[in-house]
Amino acid sequence: MNLDVFFEPKTVAVIGASEKEGTIGRAIMLNLLEKFRGKIIPINIKYDQVFGLKCYKSVLEVPESIDLVVIAIPAPSVPQVLEECGKKGVKGAIIISAGFKEIGGEGIEREQKVVEIARKYGMRIIGPNCLGVYDAHTGLDTIFNPSDRQAKPSAGNVAFISQSGALGAALLDWFTEQGIGMSKFVSYGNAADVTESDLIEYLAEDSKTSIIALYIEGVSNGRRFLCSIVKAIAKGKPVIVLKAGKTERGGRAVASHTGSLAGSYELYLSAIKQVGGILVDDLHDLLIAINALQNLPRPKGNRLAIVTNGGGAGVLATDSAEIMGLKLAELSQQTIDRLRKVLPPAASPYNPVDILGDAPADRYRKAIEIVLSDDDVDMVMVIALLQSPALNADELIDVLKYFKDRTSKPFVFIAPGGSYTMKYIEKARKLGIPAFRDPVEGVKALTYVYEFSKAIERARDRVSLFC
Amino acid sequence: MNLDVFFEPKTVAVIGASEKEGTIGRAIMLNLLEKFRGKIIPINIKYDQVFGLKCYKSVLEVPESIDLVVIAIPAPSVPQVLEECGKKGVKGAIIISAGFKEIGGEGIEREQKVVEIARKYGMRIIGPNCLGVYDAHTGLDTIFNPSDRQAKPSAGNVAFISQSGALGAALLDWFTEQGIGMSKFVSYGNAADVTESDLIEYLAEDSKTSIIALYIEGVSNGRRFLCSIVKAIAKGKPVIVLKAGKTERGGRAVASHTGSLAGSYELYLSAIKQVGGILVDDLHDLLIAINALQNLPRPKGNRLAIVTNGGGAGVLATDSAEIMGLKLAELSQQTIDRLRKVLPPAASPYNPVDILGDAPADRYRKAIEIVLSDDDVDMVMVIALLQSPALNADELIDVLKYFKDRTSKPFVFIAPGGSYTMKYIEKARKLGIPAFRDPVEGVKALTYVYEFSKAIERARDRVSLFC
Repeated sequence: MNLDVFFEPKTVAVIGASEKEGTIGRAIMLNLLEKFRGKIIPINIKYDQVFGLKCYKSVLEVPESIDLVVIAIPAPSVPQVLEECGKKGVKGAIIISAGFKEIGGEGIEREQKVVEIARKYGMRIIGPNCLGVYDAHTGLDTIFNPSDRQAKPSAGNVAFISQSGALGAALLDWFTEQGIGMSKFVSYGNAADVTESDLIEYLAEDSKTSIIALYIEGVSNGRRFLCSIVKAIAKGKPVIVLKAGKTERGGRAVASHTGSLAGSYELYLSAIKQVGGILVDDLHDLLIAINALQNLPRPKGNRLAIVTNGGGAGVLATDSAEIMGLKLAELSQQTIDRLRKVLPPAASPYNPVDILGDAPADRYRKAIEIVLSDDDVDMVMVIALLQSPALNADELIDVLKYFKDRTSKPFVFIAPGGSYTMKYIEKARKLGIPAFRDPVEGVKALTYVYEFSKAIERARDRVSLFC
Repeated sequence: MNLDVFFEPKTVAVIGASEKEGTIGRAIMLNLLEKFRGKIIPINIKYDQVFGLKCYKSVLEVPESIDLVVIAIPAPSVPQVLEECGKKGVKGAIIISAGFKEIGGEGIEREQKVVEIARKYGMRIIGPNCLGVYDAHTGLDTIFNPSDRQAKPSAGNVAFISQSGALGAALLDWFTEQGIGMSKFVSYGNAADVTESDLIEYLAEDSKTSIIALYIEGVSNGRRFLCSIVKAIAKGKPVIVLKAGKTERGGRAVASHTGSLAGSYELYLSAIKQVGGILVDDLHDLLIAINALQNLPRPKGNRLAIVTNGGGAGVLATDSAEIMGLKLAELSQQTIDRLRKVLPPAASPYNPVDILGDAPADRYRKAIEIVLSDDDVDMVMVIALLQSPALNADELIDVLKYFKDRTSKPFVFIAPGGSYTMKYIEKARKLGIPAFRDPVEGVKALTYVYEFSKAIERARDRVSLFC
């Protein structure tokens, strides 16, 4: 399925374009004018000009051809306007307007009508009841939040598709804050025509996308959805899923939000896991998963070694590793002997390896080198309480960089603390080392990359099973 | 039990005091000199002066009496030095040094010896293998991390006691960052003499402490521990517990950290819940619990109403509320009718109340007022996607403040987003309104305060049962 028209149109018409403060039509125009490199055509019966561009009363009056329209007018007028778009030969429509299936009654009929019109003319629709599309590479941006309130990530390789516009908007902010580069963002709302599965299949083939993240409430066709995930994974692209409607009450809330059925969360859970999708619990974990999958190599197994200068943090990490499905590696006798030689007598050469509160960076270097070279260790977590007077944090960052450049095993860096510590977490992140303040977050990062390494092994078999 | 000597001594001797860069003895001296208002006496056989203060070779040489000593010398010398302290009539000793029970073998014997000496002279000990004490009110600070790396919270009413020094240090940073005021901090390490139960009982009576938070790996006497928690709750003080060693491997890691037994986590879990302690899963949740318990009134029940301008966030909040044990309130017919009157037709007057993406602050005011006045609503979550062009965030903060000053029901504010949004989260927090970026965090905050409201009702009965 080709959805290119939604991301790289040559000409976009904004139906409902306006200069009026506080309107959606104004925000969309300004966002497009700021970044989009194609042609922008405002449509509004009220105006002759919008931001210096000639404004037409209808798409039918526009002399040139139009690839894509963005519709931001009250719902009752949408069907007629869409009919005109069809006649004009428009290929895609993003319908921002709300007031369709999600309100029930006449809204359901209105949505059916809109779909019929689109089918009649071979036009594709994203929405209605959505934020639409942001393509960080082409600058196409139909998101109606003003740019001083809503950040947009720079161009990169993560796609995010969201049934909820508002959560999508929040995640655009978070992506930007964390420096996560984005390929394409789609808020698809009621999914009247283009569905989550269409989008996943399209992104699986999209050369600019390497990681696909989703927020879904319900899906329109379970089997196709699972197939689209498997296909993306078979292409080497992890699919991260945040599914809402876990509880009965959550499911009821879904129905009044996008008018879809949440279905049984347990069923989703096992089905998505079965095809190798990475299920996350909340928005925060979604970001951890992206960070991990962008930066970490794939581990051979789930045997984790921990090197720490603080015993308590090692204990918390051990607990959450075991709970999340990792295994604490049983270090080989050789490794234990080698650690004993380089560590002080009060240190613990067993896993978690406690190199003590007075450890300088060089003791970290020795211990990390030894555990990384153990064949029974698949992944490593380095925990450092940087507050220790014995530790030069800049030296430790150099040590981490040294191993990052040399090992094929994934490792993460944990530094619990405040503003002093955060500086070094940022430094590590800039080097492409996933770094966090809480051991639990590091365990999650390693778990997600382990799950993906398992998923990719089995993806080819699963394509024939699920597609 | 009176432990005043550890928090408000008149005279403190630092055994192992030094000016040498990178030493623990230097950091402790500098931290004490910065804030402590009592007398500081350095002890070190190597020096005559430390930071301009006369330095003695032994406490026995000091002419005046000494209330408290901080011992930061290698473990093998500790018993002899402690014997001298006993002879001198010192009342309390904080033993920072590691190399005791946690290393096994001779370490165990050494710790027993230290306890015998203390008992002989009627001296109390905190530690060994710990960071010691920070009292934000008296300025007593024995934490050996340099002040440019380690933040210290200002004076307030939250006490934190930690079996792990390193995690304690990290939490001091986080408290500072979040503006949480602290009464007393104790890292008690191996708990050779003063135990977690002693400290909880002491803090239950401490007029400067209103909230008690703990990080524990194992406890020395289960029944006394539970009794101490119940007593604190009966005094109106919530006790928040982060317990490490949840898994078998975590338990093994505990043993090599502080030499204690982690015990069965399930047993702890049910016992702590039974006495009304608030169990949290990780460091992050510990901070949410403190924020909630400091700022929110106690709810009458667990029936939550959600008001949101974004359906997806409402769904996520609903899910996690149901999972955490809150109930989505069934709004009365009157409430639903009143909401219908003030909301647009496409809005949802059911719970979660979706007031739509184009909601201005005034629509929030009306909807919040109506749900707060419903007798079947015990608590409220206000969710706002501040990115919306229709919403003036300053006006919304005024609305929240208005209700904060007038309602006796707890409410929290959720604003998913980036830097623009964070400004308003900070504004809300400064007004004493718990505010978060993720709905899940708000649900946790409300859950903790609900758990405490149940615990306090039953605390008096439980005192007779458990003490």
